Amino acid sequence: MLAEMEQWRHVFKLDPERELSDEHLEQICLSGTDAIMVGGSSGVTYENTVDLMSRIRRYTVPCILEVSTDEALVPGFDYYFIPVVLNTDRGEWMTGRQQQALRDFGSMLDWSQIAAEGYVILNEDSTAAKLTGAKAPDSLKDLLAYARMADKLFRLPIFYVEYSGIYGNMEWVRRAKDVLEHTRLFYGGGIDSPEKALEAARSAHTIVVGNALYENLPQALATVAAVRSL
Amino acid sequence: MLAEMEQWRHVFKLDPERELSDEHLEQICLSGTDAIMVGGSSGVTYENTVDLMSRIRRYTVPCILEVSTDEALVPGFDYYFIPVVLNTDRGEWMTGRQQQALRDFGSMLDWSQIAAEGYVILNEDSTAAKLTGAKAPDSLKDLLAYARMADKLFRLPIFYVEYSGIYGNMEWVRRAKDVLEHTRLFYGGGIDSPEKALEAARSAHTIVVGNALYENLPQALATVAAVRSL
Repeated sequence: MLAEMEQWRHVFKLDPERELSDEHLEQICLSGTDAIMVGGSSGVTYENTVDLMSRIRRYTVPCILEVSTDEALVPGFDYYFIPVVLNTDRGEWMTGRQQQALRDFGSMLDWSQIAAEGYVILNEDSTAAKLTGAKAPDSLKDLLAYARMADKLFRLPIFYVEYSGIYGNMEWVRRAKDVLEHTRLFYGGGIDSPEKALEAARSAHTIVVGNALYENLPQALATVAAVRSL
Repeated sequence: MLAEMEQWRHVFKLDPERELSDEHLEQICLSGTDAIMVGGSSGVTYENTVDLMSRIRRYTVPCILEVSTDEALVPGFDYYFIPVVLNTDRGEWMTGRQQQALRDFGSMLDWSQIAAEGYVILNEDSTAAKLTGAKAPDSLKDLLAYARMADKLFRLPIFYVEYSGIYGNMEWVRRAKDVLEHTRLFYGGGIDSPEKALEAARSAHTIVVGNALYENLPQALATVAAVRSL
């Protein structure tokens, strides 16, 4: 999967808890995005996850589950991303929940479908930060330390810079990408226009567009062409 | 370094805080062990670390610093191992201290000399467990989940099963080794005789002999030949 993922520049992220008409979902799946990721910080259940997956499955776009809770570990996705929060002091978000999932399912999993994401959450007001107790890095130097940790120490396939709801500091994102040797930098947060998508795509390996799909679909869809223009 | 490390079956671990005569140190360094690791859970300082290193450096045996505190990050070792405790809920022992060290030294490090160790501490009465708040796995299944985490999720070069002071369950160690694909299993704890060394070396990739060096040196030295006989 890692080889395939290295081609990805643009990903749409859908929240199983939020409503989306069939028409809008079709536009998203046929948009030309590289992959669709399914996940959310709250309200994710087996039912709403399997429902959304089966609707995305009518299309050929690669489909990833970002695993936020064991209960919603739905089979049938192409890939499974396991978030590991690097900037928290609560071990449950690093190894605790992951260990429980591996204990219950570890011997059955197809590891070629699975990748860990080293998350750094930069917006402390976000649901994700509150849930996980994430402390935003104070400086660029702090962020780069997490980037090196993901790349060199833990050898994670993905380093995920998450501003969750706000548009981040692209200078920081670019500098973090520059220290990575093996790991891909995913950027998410506040991309709600082609202009921001273009700038973010110049700074990150892969950009993730989420909320904008629910707030202004035409602008969100236009981010695909912006990234393709690079 | 990983290629070299794959040849290691036997390692001696020296504690910078403990006394060791020149004569005993010479016997240890010329014993035929594959490497000498320097580290401890308490009382490690820059001074006692640099002192021990310079004494080991008179011999050709590879010399590793297991980094327990930033203050004792002494240059001049062949390799640096960075412990990451997997079975704690205290984030400082997973990413917290590591992030601080990377923030201060990350851009200067030679990563070809560095390897992360995913630790599972199984003896809750040990200093290491008390210091880090480690919770021993309740079952083999729990231990195997940590092994898969180290190997598949974090892709760590070393999975370190640490019984610290007591001799562990070799059936568990062997089963944990069997689920590893890329990661090396290091075993440490209670190896104080050639017989135990032989059994442990059959279960782990690499065994670590520490306390016995200070308690019964001839028996500790005899563990090298036992492992070589395999």
